[in-house]
Formats: sequence, C-alpha cells, structure tokens
Amino acid sequence: MKYKAEIKIMPHAELLDPQGKTVGKNLPNIGIHEVDQVRIGKYIEMIVDADSKEEAEKIVDTSCKKLLANLIMEKYEFNIEPLS
Amino acid sequence: MKYKAEIKIMPHAELLDPQGKTVGKNLPNIGIHEVDQVRIGKYIEMIVDADSKEEAEKIVDTSCKKLLANLIMEKYEFNIEPLS
Repeated sequence: MKYKAEIKIMPHAELLDPQGKTVGKNLPNIGIHEVDQVRIGKYIEMIVDADSKEEAEKIVDTSCKKLLANLIMEKYEFNIEPLS
Repeated sequence: MKYKAEIKIMPHAELLDPQGKTVGKNLPNIGIHEVDQVRIGKYIEMIVDADSKEEAEKIVDTSCKKLLANLIMEKYEFNIEPLS
C-alpha cells in the first residue's frame, strides 16, 4: 500500500538560524515590519510503499535518522497518511 | 496580537527536483528501497504581529510573493494560528 509522508526538519531551537535571520532582516525592505521571528527548515514529501502505517513510519523514521536530518543540528517530525 | 505562520514552499510539480532525485537515489544505500518519490522544499515558521487573522494572512502572503518564494519555480501554501 502507498503512504504519503510529510516531513518537517528544523534547526534546533537554541541554534542560530542564519537563513531565518537574513530573511527577517530583509522583510522591512519590502515594507513588512510586523514579523518577529523567522525560522527556516526543510519540508520533504515522500511516497512510501509499505504493508502498514507502522511499517511506513519505521521507513520514514530511518530515512530521517540516517539521511534526511542532521541530528546534531536539526530535529524532525513527520505525518503519514495513506495515499488517496 | 501574535500569530504563528507555518509556510510550505515546494517546487512546481512539473519541474525537476534535483535535490529530491538525489535523496531518492541515495536511500537504497542506507537499506531503504520502499520510497518512490521524494520532493524537497522549504518549511518556514514566522511569528507575525497583527490585529486580525486576515491581516496576518495578508502579511504572510505578501512575504511569500515578494521574498520567500520564487513564483516561477515554486508554489507556496501556509497555515496561520493565533500564538498560544
């Protein structure tokens, strides 16, 4: 069965986020002054072939741990739904 | 009032996604063979100061159009909730 995984990978909260800082500093240049904090990470969509939702979760979790996220700098979370 | 915006920016579906392709090709190297498609984009969190949800939506929409997303190559969607 096919499952769709939606994965968010963000820098740890206590770490500096230079990308986010840069965007935050540039928003006033386009007339936007109401934004306090900006944090930027990765959003990944994957289609996974698995026999159950639990198995799909294991596959995605391993993918995050071993390849997609740098666990020293980043945290990850994901949501999995059967592919409609 | 403060609102939290969660923004997803993805390459247009019909465009090549070299990052996604690269990850897709490397997953078998870590023993993962059940993943079909991988698409990679940006996930951005912003804290917005606005008088209403509608005003917060306008601010985030303008931020996406003018700075965060490259509209030729990318599409964006966002979700806004009052900051608890």
